[in-house]
Amino acid sequence: MKDRVFNFSAGPAVLPEPVLLEAQRDLLALPGVGASILEISHRSRTFEKIIADAEANLRQLLGVPDDYAVLFLQGGARLQFSMIPMNLMGGGRRLCNYLVTGSWSKYAAQEAVKFGETKVIWDGKATNYDRLPESSDLKVDPKAAFLYYASNETIQGVQFRDEPDTGDVPLVCDSSSDFLSRPVEIKKYGIYYACAQKNAGPAGVTVVIIRKDLLPRSSEALPGYLNFHTHAEAQSLWNTAPTFPIYILGLVTKWLVDDVGGLAKMESINRSKSKLLYDVIDSSDGFYVGHSQPKWRSMMNVSFRLPSEELTKTFVEKAEKQGMTDLKGHRSVGGIRASLYNAMPVEGVERLRDFMVEFCEQNAGVAVAGQQRD
Amino acid sequence: MKDRVFNFSAGPAVLPEPVLLEAQRDLLALPGVGASILEISHRSRTFEKIIADAEANLRQLLGVPDDYAVLFLQGGARLQFSMIPMNLMGGGRRLCNYLVTGSWSKYAAQEAVKFGETKVIWDGKATNYDRLPESSDLKVDPKAAFLYYASNETIQGVQFRDEPDTGDVPLVCDSSSDFLSRPVEIKKYGIYYACAQKNAGPAGVTVVIIRKDLLPRSSEALPGYLNFHTHAEAQSLWNTAPTFPIYILGLVTKWLVDDVGGLAKMESINRSKSKLLYDVIDSSDGFYVGHSQPKWRSMMNVSFRLPSEELTKTFVEKAEKQGMTDLKGHRSVGGIRASLYNAMPVEGVERLRDFMVEFCEQNAGVAVAGQQRD
Repeated sequence: MKDRVFNFSAGPAVLPEPVLLEAQRDLLALPGVGASILEISHRSRTFEKIIADAEANLRQLLGVPDDYAVLFLQGGARLQFSMIPMNLMGGGRRLCNYLVTGSWSKYAAQEAVKFGETKVIWDGKATNYDRLPESSDLKVDPKAAFLYYASNETIQGVQFRDEPDTGDVPLVCDSSSDFLSRPVEIKKYGIYYACAQKNAGPAGVTVVIIRKDLLPRSSEALPGYLNFHTHAEAQSLWNTAPTFPIYILGLVTKWLVDDVGGLAKMESINRSKSKLLYDVIDSSDGFYVGHSQPKWRSMMNVSFRLPSEELTKTFVEKAEKQGMTDLKGHRSVGGIRASLYNAMPVEGVERLRDFMVEFCEQNAGVAVAGQQRD
Repeated sequence: MKDRVFNFSAGPAVLPEPVLLEAQRDLLALPGVGASILEISHRSRTFEKIIADAEANLRQLLGVPDDYAVLFLQGGARLQFSMIPMNLMGGGRRLCNYLVTGSWSKYAAQEAVKFGETKVIWDGKATNYDRLPESSDLKVDPKAAFLYYASNETIQGVQFRDEPDTGDVPLVCDSSSDFLSRPVEIKKYGIYYACAQKNAGPAGVTVVIIRKDLLPRSSEALPGYLNFHTHAEAQSLWNTAPTFPIYILGLVTKWLVDDVGGLAKMESINRSKSKLLYDVIDSSDGFYVGHSQPKWRSMMNVSFRLPSEELTKTFVEKAEKQGMTDLKGHRSVGGIRASLYNAMPVEGVERLRDFMVEFCEQNAGVAVAGQQRD
């Protein structure tokens, strides 16, 4: 695998090599089938087993109770931004609550406005989304159809440790960028969803785990594809499912079960990986400045700034020459972002850590001198 | 490739072997990139070139004029059933016209009802969708926001030879099951669209070719993902595009350009392939009965019945033992359906032809005897 780089992309992102190798081996013909996973009917027995296995793996890893449906949909988180309010505000419900903790929850709240009164009960804008609310800060409206939040903000690199307490109001979580990175208690959620292309597979499939008692809220007047109830009744085969992304998601979740040994183990590895970089940031005497306040640092997306745009550019270029790609931060935050999803090997993070230490040693003096000249 | 069957699935369906081989070769790392197509950002320069090449191939093959946008969307034809009326009936338009010529156009019309007055101006139900209208049969409402039809009905196996004449009313075509199978004149259409998983790629991407003057009809109040204008402005990268299906679609269209030599050549091959089977049907003395009236026979989906359900079952089982799969007809029509998409090799159709001849010879007498006993 010497021709593979360490890919720190925020998504679509690195996948486990054993998954890629199995997919490659079988790409011309699945064993015993004689046709590619790309060519078989979504209604074939072969694919029925693939999607059932993917669901079973997810249920095992996340401990999904029987009173929750697991859906495999298209359209990414973006389509969920519409589907969630369109479905959950059915039955004459008028009000929903949002926590705006970064770019993605902000986009979600902007979309919800089209479908009902959308009350943002916490907004991190004043400090450029560098922190998250304590549960005690939140006043959830008891009449809200749901409270929506994002457990991890990919761009800002802030991550909730625990779920907000919403009482009887259904809690909806966009877990796109920390899905399957740690254990969660699904029973705390009304909807727990994630697009696959960060921690669970390639772009093109979104997992929606929904408590079944919410399904009757879906109105028959909704656009057909946007109806959770329809998809749940058809077990995600109302229409042609995105067969290949579901197949890869099945292999990734199998890797998590068999090779990694579950989500508690995965969390421990992820915690160690992110600590490698945060330790460098904290001991860099201000050369590296993390975007997130320490308490809310993300295990998945490590966002930090360097003393100047010039140094940031040099950092990205030099890292790329050493086989570490996609480190440029999102334009809204700037600096560097290293995404350390499940499939990023420890060796990749160690190489980045060593590079950061060396880059700091080589440039800290220059940076200080440069700042003094300004 | 001796472990590969001849796969007559109606979709997802057979893909060209050179495409599968290239995808397999590069699945661990695209040349010069060091990461898999499954792992790279949709905003990377590598993917920008992949999507631009896919669009360029489509524009070349179909002769798409500059005043049309080419969109790559998720959600399959099913989501288009909603998006098309939701977008095109914007600006206070109230009425749309549909031709119902089989299962898929029927589903589309059933969905449109949610968004405005949906007038079905032709319906083939009375003869179980075994024929299509002549253009002179149609009275298109000049005030209609659009006229919708399906150029090929996958289940019934009926296919239009020419476009219905709609005057100034925008013509919308679901070409999912005959996309890229023959040349078309895009300028006759307001929207020409197809899901990929029959003739153009794997499940998970839908190509929407839309005349740009229709884009202002899209209201800002639409669910974000369902807005054609938004996707056109962002060149299909408003959100994370389904990167892998678009990559495969790019390889399939490259195969059509370079290996096949364009859509006129492809049509000629497709015509020959389907003729092999229709000739057997027509010379079988009524052992095989085609579903479609001869004039409207599809080049893509050859639907026919056998004298009994028992013989149909035996036919499917014996064919499978000889490496020909997915021949069972859709439950709404019964019998056999052989889908002969672009990537089905002539040898596969020849083998099926030979099998049909032999099966008829072996069973025609038995069938007649059986019928006489009834």
